[in-house]
Amino acid sequence: MATFEPRDPNYRARIEQSFARQAFLRLLGSTVHHIEPGRVQIALPYKPELAQHHGYVNAGAQTSIADVAAGYAAMTLAAPGYSVLTTEYKMNFLRPAGQGGLIATAQVIKPGRTLNVVHADVHEQSAAGDVHVVTGLVTIMFVEGSE
Amino acid sequence: MATFEPRDPNYRARIEQSFARQAFLRLLGSTVHHIEPGRVQIALPYKPELAQHHGYVNAGAQTSIADVAAGYAAMTLAAPGYSVLTTEYKMNFLRPAGQGGLIATAQVIKPGRTLNVVHADVHEQSAAGDVHVVTGLVTIMFVEGSE
Amino acid sequence: MATFEPRDPNYRARIEQSFARQAFLRLLGSTVHHIEPGRVQIALPYKPELAQHHGYVNAGAQTSIADVAAGYAAMTLAAPGYSVLTTEYKMNFLRPAGQGGLIATAQVIKPGRTLNVVHADVHEQSAAGDVHVVTGLVTIMFVEGSE
Amino acid sequence: MATFEPRDPNYRARIEQSFARQAFLRLLGSTVHHIEPGRVQIALPYKPELAQHHGYVNAGAQTSIADVAAGYAAMTLAAPGYSVLTTEYKMNFLRPAGQGGLIATAQVIKPGRTLNVVHADVHEQSAAGDVHVVTGLVTIMFVEGSE
Repeated sequence: MATFEPRDPNYRARIEQSFARQAFLRLLGSTVHHIEPGRVQIALPYKPELAQHHGYVNAGAQTSIADVAAGYAAMTLAAPGYSVLTTEYKMNFLRPAGQGGLIATAQVIKPGRTLNVVHADVHEQSAAGDVHVVTGLVTIMFVEGSE
Repeated sequence: MATFEPRDPNYRARIEQSFARQAFLRLLGSTVHHIEPGRVQIALPYKPELAQHHGYVNAGAQTSIADVAAGYAAMTLAAPGYSVLTTEYKMNFLRPAGQGGLIATAQVIKPGRTLNVVHADVHEQSAAGDVHVVTGLVTIMFVEGSE
Repeated sequence: MATFEPRDPNYRARIEQSFARQAFLRLLGSTVHHIEPGRVQIALPYKPELAQHHGYVNAGAQTSIADVAAGYAAMTLAAPGYSVLTTEYKMNFLRPAGQGGLIATAQVIKPGRTLNVVHADVHEQSAAGDVHVVTGLVTIMFVEGSE
Repeated sequence: MATFEPRDPNYRARIEQSFARQAFLRLLGSTVHHIEPGRVQIALPYKPELAQHHGYVNAGAQTSIADVAAGYAAMTLAAPGYSVLTTEYKMNFLRPAGQGGLIATAQVIKPGRTLNVVHADVHEQSAAGDVHVVTGLVTIMFVEGSE
């Protein structure tokens, strides 16, 4: 994996400030788990309000943390004064996600001047070990403007 | 567009009962807007808790209603005793979604014995008229077992 | 569907000149079927060299004409001096494509300054009528530079 | 990465026999590069007939070898008497592919009774080393019937 050089040394504080304004992630109960250049992890502890009709975590909730992790993984590489927007994504649901709590891990595969391609995966932390529940691809666009 | 013949005449009640158990959609504040064979619409009124870092509706919230609409569009065509699971999806975000309230519309394009391919789109109902904010493709699998 | 205003009145000639340089499409035996602002169709007559291991038309050959149709649908809306590149795509294979000959139809859903979102579908022209074999979504980027 | 146990000890011969019937891959000039349980590589040497309008290898040609690698990666895990079909895929194009020759590498991420989720990547073998040109996700379905 390539090493990534952040263009804004202040990237960590910017992401934390941005995350604090994410009302939807607060509704989900999600938190920032890890930040490094090109790679971000977002946690989502289980709560019954996240469930779909079979009692598993809703696909949309899983996707939300994969997408946010991808956006912030790209944002670690953004120039000062630039923010991020999701252009598109694709998610494959590998297994149902139960009550173990989820970690989304996003890794920039191709940084760009405008577009960044990011791998995003979600694992459930079950009693039996990590279970891979989602694998996805996300395109994140840099857009001018402070958060 | 082909006409779809439901295999279970009771499809509407089954969807409404299933939706009532969707804790995550209750958290979002989402409701069933329309059901017909092969086509379902899900509404999501705006509330500040749905916002991302720029104040627009979070992509994950938009995706959640597109996915659920797709699942229920396929479920209108399921045999009795079968339920639905999302295999994978792909969403393109066309424009930011503001505070006008969202409608997701899902239309089955290819019904199948096991897999159903569904088009899912989200529109914002803004003062200036409907605005197309998401277009997506969803694969829904029939799985044995009651809801 | 919105009406699209081409920014370059010469769009048709530019597409035809570009297509003439597409060595890969010549290898496939593909031709331009229809051009209008925001919408392009590409034809692919059947030949045995296009087959996969079951004798159906290879998914990659189907995708190739869907992608090229999408690129040119966006190019009808490009400013003079701009060309197109495929950023990403997603294709769902609905049914096997037999020996009837294929038409890919691409329709721009969201034109943009940089990115264009395009629906692309492939139909087989079988004896029993048109059969929908692929539905897809394509993101096309405008890039500076003549073809 | 998990270790995969093939259900058919004869998997290598089956893939080679199947590949020999792939007329479209012969047209491209593609060859099998590597086979192991859960992982297959397909090579595509450069030739001018593969080029798109800028002289790079056409996206559809790149996708074709990524898809075929994914199908055969899943086929290493198929039971005797089962074959493979591509359900859907998503490809992100990271960089233009020049004249260095391409290798597609597919790795099964989630084997299944019916559906297999596969990561597929394409690298160009350039003078300056391997260049990552495509990353993608492919869903492959097992279908009854000999090849």
